[in-house]
Amino acid sequence: MKVGRRQLLGWGLAGAGVAGATALPYLLRRRSAVRIPPASGAAEVSAFNPMALLRQFDYGTLKQENGTRVREFRIEARTGRVQLNPALSFISWNFGGRIPGPTLRAQAGERVRVLFVNHGGHAHTMHFHGVHSGAMDGIRPVRDGAATIYEFDAEPFGVHLYHCHISPVARHISKGLYGMFIVDPPDGRAPADEMVLVMGGFDLYDRGRNDIYAFNGIPNYYLQHPIRIYQDQLVRLYLLNMVEWQPALTFHLHANFFRLLRTGRTLEATEEADVVTMGTAERHILEFSYRYPGAYMFHPHQDVVAENGCMGQFLVLPADGTAPAAIDTGHAHS
Amino acid sequence: MKVGRRQLLGWGLAGAGVAGATALPYLLRRRSAVRIPPASGAAEVSAFNPMALLRQFDYGTLKQENGTRVREFRIEARTGRVQLNPALSFISWNFGGRIPGPTLRAQAGERVRVLFVNHGGHAHTMHFHGVHSGAMDGIRPVRDGAATIYEFDAEPFGVHLYHCHISPVARHISKGLYGMFIVDPPDGRAPADEMVLVMGGFDLYDRGRNDIYAFNGIPNYYLQHPIRIYQDQLVRLYLLNMVEWQPALTFHLHANFFRLLRTGRTLEATEEADVVTMGTAERHILEFSYRYPGAYMFHPHQDVVAENGCMGQFLVLPADGTAPAAIDTGHAHS
Amino acid sequence: MKVGRRQLLGWGLAGAGVAGATALPYLLRRRSAVRIPPASGAAEVSAFNPMALLRQFDYGTLKQENGTRVREFRIEARTGRVQLNPALSFISWNFGGRIPGPTLRAQAGERVRVLFVNHGGHAHTMHFHGVHSGAMDGIRPVRDGAATIYEFDAEPFGVHLYHCHISPVARHISKGLYGMFIVDPPDGRAPADEMVLVMGGFDLYDRGRNDIYAFNGIPNYYLQHPIRIYQDQLVRLYLLNMVEWQPALTFHLHANFFRLLRTGRTLEATEEADVVTMGTAERHILEFSYRYPGAYMFHPHQDVVAENGCMGQFLVLPADGTAPAAIDTGHAHS
Repeated sequence: MKVGRRQLLGWGLAGAGVAGATALPYLLRRRSAVRIPPASGAAEVSAFNPMALLRQFDYGTLKQENGTRVREFRIEARTGRVQLNPALSFISWNFGGRIPGPTLRAQAGERVRVLFVNHGGHAHTMHFHGVHSGAMDGIRPVRDGAATIYEFDAEPFGVHLYHCHISPVARHISKGLYGMFIVDPPDGRAPADEMVLVMGGFDLYDRGRNDIYAFNGIPNYYLQHPIRIYQDQLVRLYLLNMVEWQPALTFHLHANFFRLLRTGRTLEATEEADVVTMGTAERHILEFSYRYPGAYMFHPHQDVVAENGCMGQFLVLPADGTAPAAIDTGHAHS
Repeated sequence: MKVGRRQLLGWGLAGAGVAGATALPYLLRRRSAVRIPPASGAAEVSAFNPMALLRQFDYGTLKQENGTRVREFRIEARTGRVQLNPALSFISWNFGGRIPGPTLRAQAGERVRVLFVNHGGHAHTMHFHGVHSGAMDGIRPVRDGAATIYEFDAEPFGVHLYHCHISPVARHISKGLYGMFIVDPPDGRAPADEMVLVMGGFDLYDRGRNDIYAFNGIPNYYLQHPIRIYQDQLVRLYLLNMVEWQPALTFHLHANFFRLLRTGRTLEATEEADVVTMGTAERHILEFSYRYPGAYMFHPHQDVVAENGCMGQFLVLPADGTAPAAIDTGHAHS
Repeated sequence: MKVGRRQLLGWGLAGAGVAGATALPYLLRRRSAVRIPPASGAAEVSAFNPMALLRQFDYGTLKQENGTRVREFRIEARTGRVQLNPALSFISWNFGGRIPGPTLRAQAGERVRVLFVNHGGHAHTMHFHGVHSGAMDGIRPVRDGAATIYEFDAEPFGVHLYHCHISPVARHISKGLYGMFIVDPPDGRAPADEMVLVMGGFDLYDRGRNDIYAFNGIPNYYLQHPIRIYQDQLVRLYLLNMVEWQPALTFHLHANFFRLLRTGRTLEATEEADVVTMGTAERHILEFSYRYPGAYMFHPHQDVVAENGCMGQFLVLPADGTAPAAIDTGHAHS
């Protein structure tokens, strides 16, 4: 399963999919119906930009092989310094130079082929959740400088994840080695403003506990840079808890209720709530829309975690296009 | 949104609703079918009396405004010494001189108007769970001595909560600033012996951890003063977990099974269990009746929490009116 | 309720049921359809043998009394040294000389009678989950050398548990005093390779925290001795979390999805997932089969717990009987 240098060159960088380029057909078809506000202010171009990650999906490169649709992805383990806040930088271990790693996305029934290249300085793996053979389970260490291919059918549809499974796993995860893996149902889902939020924790001093938390890698980023959405627009949130050393978190959406699709394993919601308790590696789809313009926080209701970085807000823009300047975003927080 | 002194006087204390005075019509209609035992022994009249809180609902004052039913509530933030046990007293921050605060109750579709008066000595707010506009989200600090009005439609039906959202939120909550907010479905629910239990923790020395726990504010109160219910009487328990610094608790009912209505968002139960794991701010309706007279404990199954104050019992009285003296309540516990 | 010496002698050891001897009729009827691999290597005959416990069910002794089916069980509380790993032994408190205690099994509607004999050196009890009268709730201490009888109807069908309820309960539980109690639905369930896994923690130095964890009593046992199952064979896993001092665990099955029957209270699954978050005393049925031969880990996704003893693997043998030697079980784990 190890991949030689020549194969890597042959594969090149083609697999580093750009969102949309090879997107799923039903998504392209429907996306025009969805309203997504432009990002506010100057785009920040750091490698660790939670706003850029939020709605970015990696569809890989689509091939036909003997009548089978094959999606090829290329993921590289790296190390990289991430500025968690003005005073705090951290040497992360990550997939693809970002935390979380790329949100891989395929359709149920497609074949998924992931070229994993380890330039991370330590042995790492990609362990996928979902159904596959033991040989593809991402348990065997891939040493620094080596590569391997994980190949399996995309099933079942739902929200999955991948993470490094080298021991101590909690350390590899909290260094940043995790990402989301979405398998869309055969007929897709209703058009929506789709986004990804991953709750993570950082053990800065290797003490076996979290010193600071974040949505999508950077503490308090979405609190300072609210996520802009439109009033009455259906939002589909793919939510994953990757926090170690804290058994569970209870995600809370302010001033609203969401429909819950557990593990994304259903086409219709089975519950409605404004909090959902999630253990490590638990993930769900949350669907909601905001009826009133305004600013709305989201955070785990373990409030110490929330106030230690795992906090964000939605800025709901009027459906009629009124200038957002009129909206009160001044959540006083001290 | 700030309220002047004159407005406060005009509002007066009319809003401090007494249970039943303006109760929801369908409740008045049906309540005669429900059997609730009288309280045992001399009523304790302390401000922090878990037995008095248990079945007390604040329906506010009902008004008609242009064809809309409006329920007005008046809630005051205060500080107050609470005697947690003979050896331990604690300066609480609370709503309405009690922990938890008043159980506010409205019917789906009504307009809710809450006059919040802060005499708590610090800046506080009332953040409601449920659906409302950002301006009514209870994030903006209300300074000591000031007041504000929160106004929104009562929706969706279910079990909600309110709590102070001033940072550090975990501190404000564990000092006692939380309460339940019930929105009844349009046609109400079947008649039952309805009661409220809120699990809370106290961080006595501001160390960021709970030193003692309680149902409805006073550790072990319902262990020493069992809740009397009748055999075969349907009990509807509104249960809320407000414990911080402990990610989740698993409520357990002894010797019985309950039907679970998650977040009270359904009219029929979707699960049946005798334990339910709840993160902070999670709340559910539990419906059950006891088939046999006797004494039955309830507590989180995180047993250290249970044995540190979060423990109570039901005393199930025979349906035929037999003297309760015959019932063995002697749970030996050491 | 105390039982005299003469009664004990009269009862004798008949109640110490051997699996199968008085098994439920529908189980005997159907079991031939289920394929279970023989155990690998020399059977270890230690009293604390997780492989022997895995598929062992105690059906007690069946009697007819006035037209009622009565199942009698005999359970003895004991103390016993258990070798947790080559370097670590521990004086356990246990039921029946094993951790977890015997998996008691009855059919809904039968009468269950448990003779509990305490030779444990301390006061103990058996507190059953399920429906019963307060007098049978297992709260009253049974002193060392004494015995009692717990008697109740087996209801409702589902997965239950029993544990000692002497204070401090967390200590009695973490010493080993717990077991599973299965009530089969009236018509049973589909034939399957049925097994029991109980997650437990050991507080070796009485510090109120877990030093090491295990499935079925021995840390890492099923990691070193994988559980053999057949490809495509339906597995029915009865799973219980008895870990104290850790509010919740999230059981994860590798490379597969399971159907979830919460608390075993349904005949059909209501969810599908590969992780399930469980508080202390929470238990579920997980049904799954493996499509591909190979080795597959299972563990809580609180990875520190997993890597501290609560880790196992399934070895999936080819349905066609191919020699298992061909299967890669070499999970590198350091």
